[in-house]
Amino acid sequence: MKISCSQAALLESVNVVSKAVPVKTTMPILECILLKAFNGQIILTASNMDLGIENIVRDGEIEEEGIVALDAKLFSDVVRNLPKSTVYLETDELYHTTIRCDKALYKVIGKSGQDFPALDPVKISDPIEMTQASLKDIIRQTSFSVSDNDANKMMTGMLAQIHGNMMKMVALDGHRISIRVIELKDSYPDYKVIVPGKQMTEINKILSSETDDMVQIYITSSQMIFDIEYTMMVIRLIDGEYFNYEQMIRNEFNTKLTVNRRELIESVNRATLLVKEGDKKPVIVSITDDQMELMGNSAVGSMNESLPIVKEGADQMIGFNPKFLVEALRAIDDEEITMYLYDAKSPCFIRNDTETYNYVVLPVNFNNVR
Amino acid sequence: MKISCSQAALLESVNVVSKAVPVKTTMPILECILLKAFNGQIILTASNMDLGIENIVRDGEIEEEGIVALDAKLFSDVVRNLPKSTVYLETDELYHTTIRCDKALYKVIGKSGQDFPALDPVKISDPIEMTQASLKDIIRQTSFSVSDNDANKMMTGMLAQIHGNMMKMVALDGHRISIRVIELKDSYPDYKVIVPGKQMTEINKILSSETDDMVQIYITSSQMIFDIEYTMMVIRLIDGEYFNYEQMIRNEFNTKLTVNRRELIESVNRATLLVKEGDKKPVIVSITDDQMELMGNSAVGSMNESLPIVKEGADQMIGFNPKFLVEALRAIDDEEITMYLYDAKSPCFIRNDTETYNYVVLPVNFNNVR
Repeated sequence: MKISCSQAALLESVNVVSKAVPVKTTMPILECILLKAFNGQIILTASNMDLGIENIVRDGEIEEEGIVALDAKLFSDVVRNLPKSTVYLETDELYHTTIRCDKALYKVIGKSGQDFPALDPVKISDPIEMTQASLKDIIRQTSFSVSDNDANKMMTGMLAQIHGNMMKMVALDGHRISIRVIELKDSYPDYKVIVPGKQMTEINKILSSETDDMVQIYITSSQMIFDIEYTMMVIRLIDGEYFNYEQMIRNEFNTKLTVNRRELIESVNRATLLVKEGDKKPVIVSITDDQMELMGNSAVGSMNESLPIVKEGADQMIGFNPKFLVEALRAIDDEEITMYLYDAKSPCFIRNDTETYNYVVLPVNFNNVR
Repeated sequence: MKISCSQAALLESVNVVSKAVPVKTTMPILECILLKAFNGQIILTASNMDLGIENIVRDGEIEEEGIVALDAKLFSDVVRNLPKSTVYLETDELYHTTIRCDKALYKVIGKSGQDFPALDPVKISDPIEMTQASLKDIIRQTSFSVSDNDANKMMTGMLAQIHGNMMKMVALDGHRISIRVIELKDSYPDYKVIVPGKQMTEINKILSSETDDMVQIYITSSQMIFDIEYTMMVIRLIDGEYFNYEQMIRNEFNTKLTVNRRELIESVNRATLLVKEGDKKPVIVSITDDQMELMGNSAVGSMNESLPIVKEGADQMIGFNPKFLVEALRAIDDEEITMYLYDAKSPCFIRNDTETYNYVVLPVNFNNVR
């Protein structure tokens, strides 16, 4: 292989595919970035088996076609530090690779890449089209709720559902549920798949927030593929049946209240200060006629603060894990939010009237606090 | 004690004195910030025994004089998160403290602060006056060379010397020496003291880089005191005789060369990429007529690059610890720097003609590399 391209284009490409390089792996080949030069295209690929990313280098010339796998960390360190000039990359038959840029010359040892897993994208059906910005939003607004505990594989995934012209994403971890619905421009056949939440957050880093940039999505029985200009991301679906989360959603409530979102976040944060991490002390929320009182309490001291609210229905006293409450509130863009409560043992719902979002936060016991 | 002040002023004060709060200590009282309200001044104090900092809160009213010691981490977390409004702080006779700001109310447990070590500043002589910006520069340009290994206490210190209208600072760690000299506006009696380098970098964070802001420095047999508006920093001197570093400085050389500083830093960084941290592989510098060739080498590959230089004298081949070379180069502001070499076993000097700076970097053996 003998190629050249600009340092800027190569760096961009390396940065994109690096999102799929696994931190830990038992397959040494996955620690590499695969470089392919064929048919006039220089393509970089990385994979962690759950997510594979392919990126076409935006400029570049191929003098001799070929393929080589280079250690991802080393290669990206080298590319990042090269002068802003043309990079010349050449491999010999033993995959010894020279990288030349201005007066800097690197010699590194590559691999054949024969055992690099193929991404095998299957794009049989018509793609679902949406803006990258919408996809970015819906991922950000739900993916924080997936479990990071591998013990329950299904909880590390999130539901992605297409129904007519609606896309829905759902994530839950046993303590909370995050549901978002967005409208698509066109209607599509029904799809209901489970994607690994961690890989979705990696994809999110690559998506653009420009409202004009589109993404094409292909869904098969084993893959979800995201196609954007120069980049293709292939996610392996999680097999199985997703939780019947809908049975957790109830519309009866005893208390409905409206509160300023930003003020509530700041108050919860202040109430949490006294609690050392891992202490698992709840913030206690007492709701009376026109105010919400927040209380935090620990060995080092106590805090309380009240916020103005507009309330309908019964008074309430309920305890929350402050992290879960704040993360849900942060995922919402509205200035005022509405909370629905049933009692101290039942989940709290934060949802808007059109139900384009519904955040469910389970309460925690606070008997020991007061 | 019963006081009030703006959240902004209190936060600024907390941030300043926090620089002296020790990360680890066997004296629990040092984990506190001491609040004193006397004679119309609210003063915050923190100390780690080597460095004590006192700061006067810029605004505030005292309704009842008093004193209390509050856990530094908790107190600064609370103050940082309070609304931008007036803070009311009150203690009872058991040092239970209430902090109120808008509708937020904290109750925390304080201490009497009786066992908090007094800073005891002694300001007997006339102060040395200079701009904070100059002091900031001279600390930054030398302190990186102190040893972080407590085994040799003297190496964790740095020499601060006043002679006539000159201030000199010297730091060394057995592998390198950094020397800086600046001119003061006035002349002063001679001083030669050793200050803890780590504490000097904390002081540096508090100093302003505005060229109009002055600092008054007082030196006694046991303390160096830095006085700036609202803030006093007291450093405990290290006892003993500093190294006879001057015998290491030689002016003979076989090779003198001039090179672009920025380009050299970038080249050394590129040569270092292949080396994993802790590997201790040197960068090898080969100097011939009009070029400097840098070489890096490790199990994963090799790198070389050449830079244009202007040279007088013999060719050289010398190995350096890249970190020591780069840190010295970063501490210099000149675009072009001049290096003086004797041979592969002798220190390299990077100095300017007026010798306001002199960076000495010891070479490392590289027999095993080529």
